[in-house]
Amino acid sequence: MVGFGLIGAGRIGQLHADNIVANSRAKLVTVSDAFAEAAESLAAKTGAVVSSVEDMLARDDVQAVFVASSTDTHADFIEAGARAGKAVFCEKPVDMDASRIRSCLEVVESCNQSLMIGFNRRFDPNFASLQRRLSEGEIGDVEIVTIQSRDPSPPPVSYIERSGGLFRDMMIHDLDMARFLLGEEPVSIYATGSALVDPAIGDAGDVDTALAVLKTASGKVCQISNSRRATYGYDQRVEVHGSKGMLRAGNVHETTVEVATSAGFKADPVQHFFLERYMAAYRDELNAFIDVVEQGAKPSPSGYDGLMAQALADAATESLKTDVPVSLA
Amino acid sequence: MVGFGLIGAGRIGQLHADNIVANSRAKLVTVSDAFAEAAESLAAKTGAVVSSVEDMLARDDVQAVFVASSTDTHADFIEAGARAGKAVFCEKPVDMDASRIRSCLEVVESCNQSLMIGFNRRFDPNFASLQRRLSEGEIGDVEIVTIQSRDPSPPPVSYIERSGGLFRDMMIHDLDMARFLLGEEPVSIYATGSALVDPAIGDAGDVDTALAVLKTASGKVCQISNSRRATYGYDQRVEVHGSKGMLRAGNVHETTVEVATSAGFKADPVQHFFLERYMAAYRDELNAFIDVVEQGAKPSPSGYDGLMAQALADAATESLKTDVPVSLA
Amino acid sequence: MVGFGLIGAGRIGQLHADNIVANSRAKLVTVSDAFAEAAESLAAKTGAVVSSVEDMLARDDVQAVFVASSTDTHADFIEAGARAGKAVFCEKPVDMDASRIRSCLEVVESCNQSLMIGFNRRFDPNFASLQRRLSEGEIGDVEIVTIQSRDPSPPPVSYIERSGGLFRDMMIHDLDMARFLLGEEPVSIYATGSALVDPAIGDAGDVDTALAVLKTASGKVCQISNSRRATYGYDQRVEVHGSKGMLRAGNVHETTVEVATSAGFKADPVQHFFLERYMAAYRDELNAFIDVVEQGAKPSPSGYDGLMAQALADAATESLKTDVPVSLA
Amino acid sequence: MVGFGLIGAGRIGQLHADNIVANSRAKLVTVSDAFAEAAESLAAKTGAVVSSVEDMLARDDVQAVFVASSTDTHADFIEAGARAGKAVFCEKPVDMDASRIRSCLEVVESCNQSLMIGFNRRFDPNFASLQRRLSEGEIGDVEIVTIQSRDPSPPPVSYIERSGGLFRDMMIHDLDMARFLLGEEPVSIYATGSALVDPAIGDAGDVDTALAVLKTASGKVCQISNSRRATYGYDQRVEVHGSKGMLRAGNVHETTVEVATSAGFKADPVQHFFLERYMAAYRDELNAFIDVVEQGAKPSPSGYDGLMAQALADAATESLKTDVPVSLA
Repeated sequence: MVGFGLIGAGRIGQLHADNIVANSRAKLVTVSDAFAEAAESLAAKTGAVVSSVEDMLARDDVQAVFVASSTDTHADFIEAGARAGKAVFCEKPVDMDASRIRSCLEVVESCNQSLMIGFNRRFDPNFASLQRRLSEGEIGDVEIVTIQSRDPSPPPVSYIERSGGLFRDMMIHDLDMARFLLGEEPVSIYATGSALVDPAIGDAGDVDTALAVLKTASGKVCQISNSRRATYGYDQRVEVHGSKGMLRAGNVHETTVEVATSAGFKADPVQHFFLERYMAAYRDELNAFIDVVEQGAKPSPSGYDGLMAQALADAATESLKTDVPVSLA
Repeated sequence: MVGFGLIGAGRIGQLHADNIVANSRAKLVTVSDAFAEAAESLAAKTGAVVSSVEDMLARDDVQAVFVASSTDTHADFIEAGARAGKAVFCEKPVDMDASRIRSCLEVVESCNQSLMIGFNRRFDPNFASLQRRLSEGEIGDVEIVTIQSRDPSPPPVSYIERSGGLFRDMMIHDLDMARFLLGEEPVSIYATGSALVDPAIGDAGDVDTALAVLKTASGKVCQISNSRRATYGYDQRVEVHGSKGMLRAGNVHETTVEVATSAGFKADPVQHFFLERYMAAYRDELNAFIDVVEQGAKPSPSGYDGLMAQALADAATESLKTDVPVSLA
Repeated sequence: MVGFGLIGAGRIGQLHADNIVANSRAKLVTVSDAFAEAAESLAAKTGAVVSSVEDMLARDDVQAVFVASSTDTHADFIEAGARAGKAVFCEKPVDMDASRIRSCLEVVESCNQSLMIGFNRRFDPNFASLQRRLSEGEIGDVEIVTIQSRDPSPPPVSYIERSGGLFRDMMIHDLDMARFLLGEEPVSIYATGSALVDPAIGDAGDVDTALAVLKTASGKVCQISNSRRATYGYDQRVEVHGSKGMLRAGNVHETTVEVATSAGFKADPVQHFFLERYMAAYRDELNAFIDVVEQGAKPSPSGYDGLMAQALADAATESLKTDVPVSLA
Repeated sequence: MVGFGLIGAGRIGQLHADNIVANSRAKLVTVSDAFAEAAESLAAKTGAVVSSVEDMLARDDVQAVFVASSTDTHADFIEAGARAGKAVFCEKPVDMDASRIRSCLEVVESCNQSLMIGFNRRFDPNFASLQRRLSEGEIGDVEIVTIQSRDPSPPPVSYIERSGGLFRDMMIHDLDMARFLLGEEPVSIYATGSALVDPAIGDAGDVDTALAVLKTASGKVCQISNSRRATYGYDQRVEVHGSKGMLRAGNVHETTVEVATSAGFKADPVQHFFLERYMAAYRDELNAFIDVVEQGAKPSPSGYDGLMAQALADAATESLKTDVPVSLA
């Protein structure tokens, strides 16, 4: 039974709190949030106590810290957790600055602590199954990875302005998925994009429609496409072309109901909300982290995975500006 | 918040207990089971107290009784619950004998209490959505209902012997689904079948493969097929042909992963276990019952639905023996 | 190279004429039709000569006769062809009267000639592939056959009145398919139906919506459903449940195009017209008949298959009237 | 009725000859080929006469010329045909050198003749339907075009060496499709690739696995992926993401048969051979050309389309070498 301290009681923190409470191997001990009310409300609902981060880290009955606070606090809380001898799970990204990520990972390593990063999609049962079958050689060597990822609707422009741009905010998940599936580090990335969904996004200096092409040293290639808006739901598909075949994982429709009329055959839209689409992924992610804490499993995705995804997102952002491929040294 | 007393701490009782505990509108107050150990173990896990049925029914903090005990005790517990002024949810069937069901329903009615029967499939999000769209006229008038229902593997012959036969034990779910989708009472049923899966089932006087044809007064027809064994998972499909189109709800595959090789395109088997396939159905069923208890909603499926499904199963059993259609007067 | 005489230059005769012309193993020599204009028009288009049936059968360069005339002439032309030493292909049915079919088959046998019957669906690439895999044991022993067959729209009532009823006119194709897939003779059939599509069909003494249940001596079962109207196209599906799995062949959509919008995912209707849906089947059927003529292959479907399908259709018609299963002795 | 002269009696010439013969609006008058035997064999089979190109072009009963000879002869034959006052259909590409294409198109224009280029995929019923619905605004404005195109197996290296490289030989079809679907001219292209399928292809200076990214002036984007080998068949898919939804056209499977076993659900591979996959496309392409000849319809794809596809293929080839995007001025 792992005792958890949760830092951050917002939407994603509440999700993790629910999963910790429902998990028989976990206990939610303390909750901390910059907004006292949020922490209190969540603590009341879950039976945890409210505490400062300082007090949380001092407790013996807290073995693991879940960081779900705002991005700019992630690296500091990771370091504080590691220094206090806790295993740390942190929502992506560790930081918007890759050099800050590097220094943070050094602290974690020097403390000899475990750090796991919240790239939840790796735990989606569909994508996880696909990757497992890939790694078992079911389609031979990986040659082309295709990732189609489209949000139901764009966030407010005010969010976009603070987001670091589409590549760091949205495509970063796909860049991690690319590394997960390629099985090799990309050595170059070319990215392009446009503001087609909402001109205000373009005015804010960002794009809402983007493509990226990645290549590894051995020549494997990956194409990613993003849109901030898909009328038909949260579109999340991956496909891997290999030497012996092709593996793909499609979308999850709201129901299996189909209607046939003179207009044709109609199926439901795909699930719209990421919390619905990735509900099972968040549960499996928690179990993987508990395996790290209890059984010393290797954290995956690791802090290094977080660093590499951020480096790829930075490179894609640069490529968008310069319109040439960027090397990842 | 509805206080629940649970009678029966076996597999299905445990499932309902978990759902009650996870439901913010419900509280599991007491658990009762003929086997004290089962009750104690479930009570310990859920925070409920163990009690006799008598004590449970006497408690003011129990407003609703969940009957998940063995079939031969259902009718008695329903009557006891109704007499104690509780709303009652009972797993199907109320009883193997239709006349006993009738007398039980009279008691419930005389007590002016609510009774809901556990035909869980009505709450499957796929089937529920299909039926809602049907009732909204999306495909016009119902003409042909097709229900394909196949278990992953047969139960032990010892179970078969006490089951009342395939029509009462297995097809009863499909007979209820037929009534749910036809929107009219069947007036005749023809059934046939064979023991093709396991000769021992035939030796026990039962069939493991069966077809039934139902017809309503206005001429709508329904065909049902059952097998006790489907190698590819728990096969649960319905299709309704109407004057303006066709609605169907397919199976749920384990994942959305598909592999393409020189052998073709391969998708996962469908979910094998009924608890997995109908997990969401059981949760929605509980919510529907809470609506009955808290808001006075009309119970559906009702005790009458339980009676009619049993009458259809009895008629199918008779038709199998006589090889002629049986009227439902 | 097989020389063909074609009797009947209507819609189906024209179809066969086109296929004969396009087939490098066949030559259309003569065309005959009760309406001289129809024969002349088709002959002009195909390069064949017009002739009487008598003259056609006297020609040495005609080895095979294709009977595509009206049903009431089939048996006579089959006998005339066989007596003239020709191989005969005849559209279904041989005759509406099973005893007339029997006497006709005796003539064919006494002449030691080949007769093949036009149950075109056996040659549909989808159904043919399914049956081949079935016969190769891919899903073990056959247990349940399900045939869903629905026309796009009903024929005129004037046609219905002369058709012999739904079972002889429409379901006969499915009854032949049932025999093709069951691999055993049905020993009983139960059929029921209603006039739900058009009351005028009911007034004409027929049904437009029907179900049938067949059973073989070893206990294999088959369910067939028919409707005279499917808004979404020509619905033609078969499914076989076996001891090791399930084989099914679905519909053919007009295109593979799919559109996804906020309303969901929409695919095209299925092909509406039987000539389009079964175009490849008619071509493959012709090749199979040429194999009979040139290489002495066993005709399949044979005259016996034609007889058995008609006997099943007769029995289904009787079952509809009496509402009890009818045995096939 | 259009009289055709066919130049080139190889595999693709034979295909077109068959379609001309089967088309009631067309007549194959003469066939020419550098190899006399090929011309004679095809003429014998189709009832055409063998002639030199010179004699063909001098005939009054030839209104249209079909150029299906080797690539290096295309431009010369187009010019000769146009000068002789014939409408010309030419297989892609007009020439491997864009400047030669330009001079050829000038000749055609100066002769005021029609030229249509054989980008057959535009006539595939699936892709044609998708493009029509796109142009009717069914999914609003085009934003992202995705084209997945993979051959069943690579051609011999000897062919690769003379092919002009993957972008000119294989991706050129997808580049034309991109223009067809984008509805705007691409202004830049980035391409990358590797030799993963066969190292000998890399040794020959070519790639067998490639990605390309195109962008139009208004910011629409397109991603193309190619592989010379797909174990599961001839993989040909397009998808268009628009402001109001998504349109896609999938592959065509060999049959609609599906088998379900304990291993899962398995469908057939997709059709392997391009002649099979695009059989209907070639027929519809011929009809479109006959409309040009008979009714003065505007040729589409036009010589200009041929030029632009070649220019894109050239630019992609350059981008592969330089690893930077190439502008199309």
